[in-house]
Amino acid sequence: MPGPRAAERICGRSLEEFFEEITRFHGHPAPGLVLGGFMVDWALELVRARSGERVEADAIVESRHCLPDAVQIFTPCTVGNGWLKVLDWDKFALCLYDKHALIGCRVWVDLEKARAFPRISDWYLQRVSKQDLPLEQILDAIVSAGRSVLSCRPVRVTRLHGPVKKKAMAICPGCGEAYPLAQGGRCLACQGGGYCIPMDDMGLPE
Amino acid sequence: MPGPRAAERICGRSLEEFFEEITRFHGHPAPGLVLGGFMVDWALELVRARSGERVEADAIVESRHCLPDAVQIFTPCTVGNGWLKVLDWDKFALCLYDKHALIGCRVWVDLEKARAFPRISDWYLQRVSKQDLPLEQILDAIVSAGRSVLSCRPVRVTRLHGPVKKKAMAICPGCGEAYPLAQGGRCLACQGGGYCIPMDDMGLPE
Repeated sequence: MPGPRAAERICGRSLEEFFEEITRFHGHPAPGLVLGGFMVDWALELVRARSGERVEADAIVESRHCLPDAVQIFTPCTVGNGWLKVLDWDKFALCLYDKHALIGCRVWVDLEKARAFPRISDWYLQRVSKQDLPLEQILDAIVSAGRSVLSCRPVRVTRLHGPVKKKAMAICPGCGEAYPLAQGGRCLACQGGGYCIPMDDMGLPE
Repeated sequence: MPGPRAAERICGRSLEEFFEEITRFHGHPAPGLVLGGFMVDWALELVRARSGERVEADAIVESRHCLPDAVQIFTPCTVGNGWLKVLDWDKFALCLYDKHALIGCRVWVDLEKARAFPRISDWYLQRVSKQDLPLEQILDAIVSAGRSVLSCRPVRVTRLHGPVKKKAMAICPGCGEAYPLAQGGRCLACQGGGYCIPMDDMGLPE
């Protein structure tokens, strides 16, 4: 964990608790997740300032890497409860919004601002190897920078909001399992999309 | 929480702890997540039996609903650390596998077996309204059934395993943010895929 700073709170936690929760859930204090925590912290503050402390905020993240965990650790939104949507865009940005008003805040890494923090921009743009930029130094830089490398903007959410409607289910004639009828006459795995092959109990292909 | 049963442990937890952790992370004890916990429990047991207690197991879930949270609560795999992959297939099945050997176990809801548990099959196939089948009754049935409504099979994983390689990044001329060069001359949002529109600070469209 980076050295102590002023008694700042992030997502309602002390810096120590913040790192502990990240490590417990994610397995290690990934720089992207620490930065993501600062993004969630800022977005939450702004959404609450607009819609009240008790706002029900849903989330969209624009990368599969790290950011989903920042939202899942520090807000009630998870992938499985549907309040968090994950876009596989590889953009380091997220949006928290009032799920009723559909108005919220998008926060992203601002490359212009990041110029003032060479360690962060080198890490972010993958300009330096892990050997040349040790984890501890990146984390120190991210904690020191906090919101200084981020920008935010109020937004109205136009897509991806709301619960995913339950679909009519059918039984796949291939595998005998339930699947959404709209996918066709067989489930996606039986249409050739499978990711695994069955084996016998000895671990040999059947 | 359903009434007490024999001193059974699920994913290493007492039934009470199991429900507490589900509720804390997911917000409520969703039937799909409780069932998902039993699926993770069985898959983990089998993967450990084959590859040892200290196996590093990665996960694939075949639905965005509930199942990702079962894996995220009861294993070290999360969406953000990449050890869990989520397929949007709406199939209630998951796979845990030894990430080095790529051999593991797929567990799914077996409709034949579920016939013996009408409450579970009615809920699972959406045959009954929430009014006619209260949450408490579904949860009771799921806890009573445990693995009896599931099947499992050893599998070799052929796709989706391993970390996602880092991509070469570029700076989008549209928004000035970093994005993967392979997506084209602009980022996906600037290509028209965006989900929100910017507003001014008063919450009015710009």
